[in-house]
Amino acid sequence: AFTESGKASYYADKFNGRRTASGTVYRPGQLTAAHNTLPFGTRVRVTNPRNNRSVKVVVTDRGPHAKGRIIDLSKKAARKIDIIDAGVAPVTLKVIRKAR
Amino acid sequence: AFTESGKASYYADKFNGRRTASGTVYRPGQLTAAHNTLPFGTRVRVTNPRNNRSVKVVVTDRGPHAKGRIIDLSKKAARKIDIIDAGVAPVTLKVIRKAR
Repeated sequence: AFTESGKASYYADKFNGRRTASGTVYRPGQLTAAHNTLPFGTRVRVTNPRNNRSVKVVVTDRGPHAKGRIIDLSKKAARKIDIIDAGVAPVTLKVIRKAR
Repeated sequence: AFTESGKASYYADKFNGRRTASGTVYRPGQLTAAHNTLPFGTRVRVTNPRNNRSVKVVVTDRGPHAKGRIIDLSKKAARKIDIIDAGVAPVTLKVIRKAR
């Protein structure tokens, strides 16, 4: 299965209601993420190794661009793995279901 | 004229050759940028107030998502205003020509 390690950040609140690259609307309370290469609809488990918390998200958007960053999480997903205060944090990804 | 202050970062090298949201291909040596709302083709002057250097870029892509970040610059543009080592740096933007 596809796995990847790198840094995660999360969407600023101002993205609420904006269109994502997949055509859906970003909502902070949904469990979604932006990834640069995985097909839209892919389900991914994101784990924070600092506290061993994990969350399942669906890839709905493209990004991030910055070096070392592999995923941008929705606000709710970021809260579930407790990276809100850090802003950027190391994570590991694992694909749990491919897009249909 | 539209002006904005916030933080800039720049594209990781792995984006070389990848399609942007506008349909063009990202090349590190071109003076381009990702911005979340300005129309593709808009020309923007980006200034680093720490050293007063500035660079003119064309908006070709969407992003970034993280709080406080307003623009992601191509590698060449980032080098021109000397933010490569910092990774993320404060900048000011000014639109100098609207998209045609």
